[in-house]
Formats: sequence, structure tokens, C-alpha cells
Amino acid sequence: MRTQVVIIGSGPSGLILGELLHKAGIDAVILDRVNRDYILGRIRAGVLETGTVGLMDEIGCGARMHRKGLIHEGVELSFSGRRCRIDLAGLTSSTVMVYGQTELTRDLMDHRESHGATTIYNAADVTPHDFDGDRPYVTYEKDGTTHRIDCDFIAGCDGYHGPSRAAVEGRGLETHEMVYPFGWLGVLADVPPAHEELIYANHPRGFALCSQRSLTRSRYYVQVPLDDRVEAWSDDAFWDELRRRVPADIAEAVVTGPSIEKSIAPLRSFVAEPLTFGRLFLVGDAGHIVPPTGAKGLNLAASDVHYLFEGLRDFYLDTSRAGIDAYSARALSRIWKAERFSWWMTKLMHRFPEDGDFGQKIQEAELDYLAGSIAAQTALAENYVGLPY
Amino acid sequence: MRTQVVIIGSGPSGLILGELLHKAGIDAVILDRVNRDYILGRIRAGVLETGTVGLMDEIGCGARMHRKGLIHEGVELSFSGRRCRIDLAGLTSSTVMVYGQTELTRDLMDHRESHGATTIYNAADVTPHDFDGDRPYVTYEKDGTTHRIDCDFIAGCDGYHGPSRAAVEGRGLETHEMVYPFGWLGVLADVPPAHEELIYANHPRGFALCSQRSLTRSRYYVQVPLDDRVEAWSDDAFWDELRRRVPADIAEAVVTGPSIEKSIAPLRSFVAEPLTFGRLFLVGDAGHIVPPTGAKGLNLAASDVHYLFEGLRDFYLDTSRAGIDAYSARALSRIWKAERFSWWMTKLMHRFPEDGDFGQKIQEAELDYLAGSIAAQTALAENYVGLPY
Repeated sequence: MRTQVVIIGSGPSGLILGELLHKAGIDAVILDRVNRDYILGRIRAGVLETGTVGLMDEIGCGARMHRKGLIHEGVELSFSGRRCRIDLAGLTSSTVMVYGQTELTRDLMDHRESHGATTIYNAADVTPHDFDGDRPYVTYEKDGTTHRIDCDFIAGCDGYHGPSRAAVEGRGLETHEMVYPFGWLGVLADVPPAHEELIYANHPRGFALCSQRSLTRSRYYVQVPLDDRVEAWSDDAFWDELRRRVPADIAEAVVTGPSIEKSIAPLRSFVAEPLTFGRLFLVGDAGHIVPPTGAKGLNLAASDVHYLFEGLRDFYLDTSRAGIDAYSARALSRIWKAERFSWWMTKLMHRFPEDGDFGQKIQEAELDYLAGSIAAQTALAENYVGLPY
Repeated sequence: MRTQVVIIGSGPSGLILGELLHKAGIDAVILDRVNRDYILGRIRAGVLETGTVGLMDEIGCGARMHRKGLIHEGVELSFSGRRCRIDLAGLTSSTVMVYGQTELTRDLMDHRESHGATTIYNAADVTPHDFDGDRPYVTYEKDGTTHRIDCDFIAGCDGYHGPSRAAVEGRGLETHEMVYPFGWLGVLADVPPAHEELIYANHPRGFALCSQRSLTRSRYYVQVPLDDRVEAWSDDAFWDELRRRVPADIAEAVVTGPSIEKSIAPLRSFVAEPLTFGRLFLVGDAGHIVPPTGAKGLNLAASDVHYLFEGLRDFYLDTSRAGIDAYSARALSRIWKAERFSWWMTKLMHRFPEDGDFGQKIQEAELDYLAGSIAAQTALAENYVGLPY
């Protein structure tokens, strides 16, 4: 088989890239190790930046998102018995949209299927080859046979554990990493959210987040030690702990219900540099991970796709390599700013016993300053809604 | 002897407090361990916030400062071969004034002498007594005799090593401290400044600062390891190192000359809580130390004096204790914000090898973000010119 671009990974970044290429008349095949239902079973992010919403509209895939998604004009911080609302709309003239990654992925898959583009699921041992030269190809195993797809470019949209970054290790890849000394215990439940906006709570017992996926589906998190096991947390214990960490009126408004998903996720910052290796590009989680505090993971994957698509389009339409040559630097400039913001917001809202007494006082001083400074709130807001592409 | 307020320490905070009290008709005696010339021989800060300038005006002591001081409407950051000017005036409608602490202290001493208020120099073993009750007193040794001053209140404006904080240790005093893994090697020289504004430089070899005291007196600093000895740094070695760390055109503009002072100062963050112990108050460096990066030390002492004076004035004029009861909390709220800013600016502009590769990348991302964000520049600027009292 031959195509112009092989996209490894059928998550949001691979799917958005596929739709952008399709719209530009560029042929692409998507390969994924697992199947559609498995991908749609993953519970992931739920806050979209305006730029991400714009990409969905650009590919004509935004109708259900605009119908079901919830525009949020602010987020709240809670700390030291105080509340501070960050007026995203007022401070930045922008907003965010609450719409689950699962829903977004479904919309993208349906759209792709509607125009008959090729997605190959259950492709095992996907391996990029010869991307240093002009004739790269990708092999995979399926139904007992080795298949080969020749292509011009390979887009590695295959996540942190995928084969794309593995293929470039030892070829000048540098990695930068920070692991945080705690995890997030998350619960998804079909109950209405306790509050119309997200609430990030810094509490002496640890961080908590009241998030949501829709008006009838809530997503809550509490900071837990890394060695906590999810089996040790009953639903009741989770709800009790959540209510201890959020403001009293919010605790009262929490509607409890059986968890439909419950898991502990470690928090990590990770960046691979560069993102381009000949004709192979790392995109999204394949190239970088942020802690979820700033809601940047999915949105950063979307901005990578934006930059990469511009490069590929220019290559095919104008036969200019400038855009693909610039992809890594353009994407990384925005990635590092989002890494900085995600690290900062994680530091601001969690408890870090190892930072000691002085670190704790500095955190409290920063929250106190933030609550009184329009400039500091604007800096938070402009990062939260997403820095410009 | 009897007075209303004994002020321990004849530095800027003690002197400003003395003048404010004098103007309000409240009697105060200043005690200092050393003499006038010794105090005026100290080389200290040189950047005044508008609030500090306002206090000098309020006590009628600002004439020479306004004649000789230099209004700075901006400061520059240099990093990664780039320059970013922080437009203090444009972003905050405020400015800072460059005027050496030595000059300011001289103005205050001259003013105090002109109206004949009592300052007792060379007072040894100054000791506060009975400040838990309503009749505190202070003793000191001079000319072979023990002297005693009875008073209503004791203001500890006696610096980090003075007797005031020593007198309250073990009485519920909490201290919070952070020591930085480097020092500043500073040189004072009678040469014109290399640039009209201050330049804070983050360079792979370490931080450098181009500062000044006047149009003919420059103050330069370079970050050095804590175990460097000042004797090992010749003037030539200092100038060479400075020029390596600042932008090329600034390096060329540096006018060298013999150092009239050269020393290495460690960097430290320190806060004592509370600041009030009965009728004894900790003011300025007696209660808190900031690293000098944000130019906050002298200005924070001045804002302490502002809050304390308001409390004392209300006590004597309105017989209300509310102001003195609120002193510690009001002062500490602003102190902690300045501690946060000084810590942040120190982290932003210095090299911290122990923060590792990820920490260095986050620092670079923050500088890159700052250079492109009006909100982030405004947050820096509003802290640099001084948060409102």
C-alpha cells in the first residue's frame, strides 16, 4: 500500500490531523494498535481551549461539540477558606469548552468513517522505517501477515508508550522529565456537577478538583500519595475525602453516586526534543506529557497538529519545506510554555511536604497575591484558555 | 530617662519612624550600637519604591532625594541573547527612584539633628525589658554606666543581628528561612553606569546585575559560588566576568575603575512571625530578609514603618489599640508577597544547577513567556514598583 502520510495512533491528535489532511486533499492512513471501542473506552481530558474548538470547526466536525459542550467563562480556586474566581472571559475575551475527550474522539471517528478514509485497527508491531531518507515506510502485523505502507511522512500520534518515540531513541533525542510525588485519584460518576464551573482546591489535606464532562456527568479528583492503591478507596471513602477538601457549600452540593470509573494517575512533566527526525514527527503525548492541573494535554496535542498540518500542507501545495522544517521549534516553543504553566499550577495548588515550611508559605503568599492582582489573574487566565498558536 | 517610643537602630527604618513620630508630636529616642559615621559607611540598597519616596516626602525629608535621585521608568532583563524591557511606567503608572541608602540615611540623620531629637550612638548591650506588660524599658551601657529608658513602646529597627528579635526568641516566635546556594559579588565604583536603566542578566555563567547609585557611581554584581573568597577576585577579574554575562553592547559600555567597595553577600529569605510581642515590634530586617534581586529590602522596612506608625499614631491620638494590634498581620501580608516576589525573581534570573535540566528548561520557558506576555510583565512590574500599602 502507498499513501502520502501514515498517522500512527487513532486518538484525537491523529484523527484531527487526518481530517485536516483529508480536507486539503492529502491522503493519509491511520494505524492503531487497538480497536475503536477500546479507544472510546479510555477516560481522558475534558476541557478544550478555543484553539482546539477552532480546529474541530475547521474540519467540519464541531456540530455535536457545540450542541453538547458547555462554555465555561471562569474557573475557581479555593484556598485558606477563601474563593477566587478567575474570570476567563473578562480577563482574556476567551473561554474554554467542557466536552469529554471520548465524545470528541467519537465525533472525529464518525466523521472519518463518513468519508471513507482508511483506518487500520488492531495493527500490531507498528514500526516506522527509513524516515531519515525520502522514502519512509511503516510495517505492521495483522491477521498473521506483515503489511507495509510506503509514504512520504510519518506522524507519530501514538502517545507516550507508542512506537514512534521508541524508534528515534539514540538518534539525538533529548528528554526532560519531572515526576511529582503524588497522584490523582479520579472518579467519574453520572451525577450532576456540584458547581457550574470547575473548582481547583488547595487544602491542607491535599488538592481536590471538581470537574465535569457534562451537566449529568461529573469528574472529581483528590491528590493521593503515590503508593495508594485504588482498591483501598471505596466510593464512600472518596466522596468523604473530596468533601473535606472543597468549600463547605460545594461539599454540600456534591451529589454522590456509584463510580463508573476510578483510577489513580501519577503526575509527570516530560518533553522530548526535537520533535522531528527526518520525515518522522512526534505529535502530542508521543513528544510531551503535562500534569493534568492546567488541562493542557489534549490542547497541546491539538496545537502540535496545527503546526504540523501547516507544514505538510505547504509541502504538498507550495512544495515548500519551510513549514515542516520549522515544526519542531514552533511546536516546542508553545509546548514549553504550557509545560511551565502546568508545572506552576501544579505547584500552586498541591501540597508538597518536601518543599518544607518556607515553600508552603511562599505558596500561600502566591495565592494571596493572585487573589488581589488583576495582572496575575490575567496571566493565569491567558494560559488556561490557551496561548495563541 | 523616659520617652514614649524607644527606637532601637538608627538605620532608615528607625530614622523614618522617628521622623513620622516627631511630626505627630510623639516623643522618641533612637539608640544605636555604633556611631553615625559607621552607619553611613555601610553600602546598601539603592532602589526606592514610590511608597518609600512618599514617606520621605511626608516627613519633609525628600528635597535632596528629589534633586539627586534618578527616576527609572523601566528595568531590563537579558537572557538567551535576548533583551526584554519591563516598562514600569507604562504598565503600572508608577516608577522607582535610584537613590543610595547611604544618601537617604544621611538626609534622615541631618533632618533629625536639625530639630534636636535624641539619638544615642555607641550604646552597647541594648536590651528590651518587660515589653509583655504596660511599662517596658530599655537598658544600655555607655561610658561605663548602665542607662535605662522607660517608655510605652519599643520599635526593633535593629536589623537581622540586633537585640530585638533575640529578646523574643522562645516566646512564640516562628521563623521561616531559605538559603540560596550562591552569593553576590558586588563592586561599587565611581564610574558612570553602563546603561541608563538597571539590567538583570541571566547568563549560562550565572546572574549579573548592572545597577547604579547615581550618574557617576555604579554598582555591579555577579553571582558567585558561596565558597568564593572576595580576596580571590581582583578588580580586573570582576570586570572581565561582568562583561561576559551582560549583552555585548552593554559590555562595551561598561566603564571600569578601581572598586571603592567589594564584597560577597550570601542570599537569604527569612521571615519571623509574629512581628509584635506585647509592646515590642520587629521592623524591617529585624523581622525579615529578602534576597536583593527584587530590590525589596529597604522598601519593605519602609512599609513596616508605615503600618507601625499608623498604629502608634492612632494609639496616642485616638487611644485606639486597633492599629498596633493589627501591625503584625498587616505588615506580614505585604512582607510575604514581597518575599514571594524576591524568591521568584531570584529563581528566574540565577542559575540553579541543583534544579536540574527540567528546572533550567522551565526557567527558560518562563523567560520566553514573560517576554511575550503583557500580563506577566505587568505582574512583574507591579511587584517591582511595590504593591500598594
